[in-house]
Amino acid sequence: MNFKIRAATKEDCKDISRMIMELAAYVKAPDQVKISHEELQGDGFCQNPFFECLVAEVPEEQKSKEGFTVVGYAFYFYTYSTWKGPTVYLEDLYVMPEFRGNGIGTGLLSKVAEVAKKKKQCVHLHLSVLDWNTPSRDFYAAKGAQDLTVTEGIHVLRFDGQNLDNLANEAPKD
Amino acid sequence: MNFKIRAATKEDCKDISRMIMELAAYVKAPDQVKISHEELQGDGFCQNPFFECLVAEVPEEQKSKEGFTVVGYAFYFYTYSTWKGPTVYLEDLYVMPEFRGNGIGTGLLSKVAEVAKKKKQCVHLHLSVLDWNTPSRDFYAAKGAQDLTVTEGIHVLRFDGQNLDNLANEAPKD
Repeated sequence: MNFKIRAATKEDCKDISRMIMELAAYVKAPDQVKISHEELQGDGFCQNPFFECLVAEVPEEQKSKEGFTVVGYAFYFYTYSTWKGPTVYLEDLYVMPEFRGNGIGTGLLSKVAEVAKKKKQCVHLHLSVLDWNTPSRDFYAAKGAQDLTVTEGIHVLRFDGQNLDNLANEAPKD
Repeated sequence: MNFKIRAATKEDCKDISRMIMELAAYVKAPDQVKISHEELQGDGFCQNPFFECLVAEVPEEQKSKEGFTVVGYAFYFYTYSTWKGPTVYLEDLYVMPEFRGNGIGTGLLSKVAEVAKKKKQCVHLHLSVLDWNTPSRDFYAAKGAQDLTVTEGIHVLRFDGQNLDNLANEAPKD
């Protein structure tokens, strides 16, 4: 299958938004998505973007059943290790089911690694997976990813909603 | 104890660097720190900084045994959720042992929450802890953090070194 991987443009945000919903449905959280394609446009295609995104595109004659030619995306941003310096975090990697098994996921993942190394000299790429998501865990393991939750005991914590508000309200006044 | 929390300046990077080493020693990885204070200056105090940092400072008369007045730091950067929008990641939170128990850690943490909400409308604050680090886990739990590794089964994966190079070398050519 022919496909091309390229940097997303503002015009791709509708496709990205559609696939964010598809991925959320896959991880059993379709009602969690509160971001519109307009917000993606504003947050990713501005002076200081919050993120970068790659998309995978197939030729018109290979379009999806519903008529889409943008069939996968990798959504990432730059982070920083106080031990090692610049790093990159892969927030989402997704390929539409009917296009899987053609190297598109690998293409997107490896392109993020290449861009992050070239552009920001990133020394590692990190991401999160859910423990029940065996296909994804196997995919990343086969590519050489280390599971830091297993090997080093890393846990991810989060403050949100009222807990984040309470925290912010406790801040010392200047 | 009197203390002040303020945004770090370029001139604080020597102190931050010293405390990054102290924190690395605490988490049993002192040989992992490869970043100098000059690199922190370049990466954090430039046109598009990789991170922001707050420091906690005590008055001269309360300085540490070794003569330091900058006694804690919170190191963070902005991230992005494809479900919720802007978020903030707390990479490091540290207070020198002799200054603990005075609300400095809480002050730093809550100030990060406040800054992130005001400046970037962040909807959650996330961070990582090691499973054996009970004091930190208890501290964050008491403030309302949810442990997503326990409640949702989130694992953190990483590609680095040769694995990252291999990945980047696999990238499709443009």
